[in-house]
Amino acid sequence: MFTEHFVNINGDIVLGDKAQISIFDRGFLFGDSIYEVTYSENGAVLFLDEHLDRLYQSAMYIDLELTLTRDQLKKELLRTLKASTYPRAYIRLIITRGTNEINLDPTLSQENNFIIIVKPLPEYPEALYKKGLFLTISSIERNSIKSTNPRAKSGNYLNNVMALNEAKKKNADDAIMVNSNGNVTEGTTFNIWFVKDSILHTPSLNSGLLKGITRDKVINICEVNNLTLRVDTFSPSDFLDADEMFISSSTKGIMPVYKLDDKVFGSDIKDWPMIDQLIKLYSNYKTKYQQNTKYKYL
Amino acid sequence: MFTEHFVNINGDIVLGDKAQISIFDRGFLFGDSIYEVTYSENGAVLFLDEHLDRLYQSAMYIDLELTLTRDQLKKELLRTLKASTYPRAYIRLIITRGTNEINLDPTLSQENNFIIIVKPLPEYPEALYKKGLFLTISSIERNSIKSTNPRAKSGNYLNNVMALNEAKKKNADDAIMVNSNGNVTEGTTFNIWFVKDSILHTPSLNSGLLKGITRDKVINICEVNNLTLRVDTFSPSDFLDADEMFISSSTKGIMPVYKLDDKVFGSDIKDWPMIDQLIKLYSNYKTKYQQNTKYKYL
Repeated sequence: MFTEHFVNINGDIVLGDKAQISIFDRGFLFGDSIYEVTYSENGAVLFLDEHLDRLYQSAMYIDLELTLTRDQLKKELLRTLKASTYPRAYIRLIITRGTNEINLDPTLSQENNFIIIVKPLPEYPEALYKKGLFLTISSIERNSIKSTNPRAKSGNYLNNVMALNEAKKKNADDAIMVNSNGNVTEGTTFNIWFVKDSILHTPSLNSGLLKGITRDKVINICEVNNLTLRVDTFSPSDFLDADEMFISSSTKGIMPVYKLDDKVFGSDIKDWPMIDQLIKLYSNYKTKYQQNTKYKYL
Repeated sequence: MFTEHFVNINGDIVLGDKAQISIFDRGFLFGDSIYEVTYSENGAVLFLDEHLDRLYQSAMYIDLELTLTRDQLKKELLRTLKASTYPRAYIRLIITRGTNEINLDPTLSQENNFIIIVKPLPEYPEALYKKGLFLTISSIERNSIKSTNPRAKSGNYLNNVMALNEAKKKNADDAIMVNSNGNVTEGTTFNIWFVKDSILHTPSLNSGLLKGITRDKVINICEVNNLTLRVDTFSPSDFLDADEMFISSSTKGIMPVYKLDDKVFGSDIKDWPMIDQLIKLYSNYKTKYQQNTKYKYL
């Protein structure tokens, strides 16, 4: 089942079917772990520095001490990619707080476990970029900043699993979630945006959401290209009243939304000029990055 | 490190050091799992039916379809206990939604993974039952019923890990948590109670907490023994104003709290007549149960 997966477990690279971890690992017992997902194209990792920056942010939010250096993480990641020989790969890096006698107390663990998964990049159907996604507004609230802060990209993803589960039952592709104030936060694995009267809008970090790498890039692209952007708190009705809607994600990039609950935004990328423009700007941004990156492994 | 642990993984019983699971298991990736903890004494499992009932409740809350029957779970559990030959054992049963290609979508998994861990029961120092615990009120809110419902005993325990982490930094033994309304919910791994003017009080389920098995037993003991009990929403000040405070947990039973933040309830079980009485009543209740249980394995 996992024969195409190259997995680095604490320095040992094995094929996916042999990739195992102790059931006493805190990631398994409590979801006490953090992770990052990115990908490579043409044998070069996309935005590796940014993902490692965020990994350190996640570690800070859950008070997880990283027992590997940043250089060790980079080295192991590039070594795993090289072993795979995949020029175009999905990359997942997981750091758990480690293994100790069954006990919630996080101070009992002395050393992290790290796992790097490399597999062929799943190709999303081109139609999704042309025709868009159908999303629903979940009845399940996003975890609060004051409880399990969504700013930490952690192994506690049941909140998002449940929202996606609900969306699938409605035959939707995925879900977006509100916080306890009723304001929109993010999707289950992506940030969300809307366009109204040619102005871009995206929920602010204090709505309770992950600081997406692609979200950061789009914000940057808006600034450089003089596109007006409003980062604020928004209600579901702000989204339902929009002209265009899209998602941003490290693996999916920028993808339009054609429908949110009963609201239809259109049926084709031709209906969404701002999204069309952003997809092109983001593609150019990535091309430039790849030409200059030092994170090549093939 | 885990040489005293007997672990049953999907039917294979191995020693703890060899107990491993695929890193693609959803429990490891997303905390997409449920679990129960109980123990055995004199070769008999305590409250097994009640724990299995709650396991099914947890499964319902996260829409996890159990692919093993209740009888299979019981059989595997008793088989693992028998293999250990421990008359007095800690027992942890974990069910994950299973293994599938990395994707949040819970419908992709066809079959659960189950893990049963049996190890010698850790003995809590007798002094804790006489002198009590020092708890703090956490600044981290308990996950909301509307986001990650605490009624499901799941593999998403980072919320509790963070509260315990904070407590340890204050040199406390453990923490209790409030919800977003500021009402008290539960401890990190236990339910909580207080006594005021000889009346017992414990937070209601709609405060957002796990329906503890020992909590249920204490409620039952109150009824049978005509002890007045109020189950309601309570603020931290209700607890800080109490005469006695205690916790209930499957592994710890009933244990007094001598201090909550700056409030000192006393220094010895002699100061807490109601707790003293309840510990005795609960002990008698357990003895009777053990004399009549059909879940003997030695």
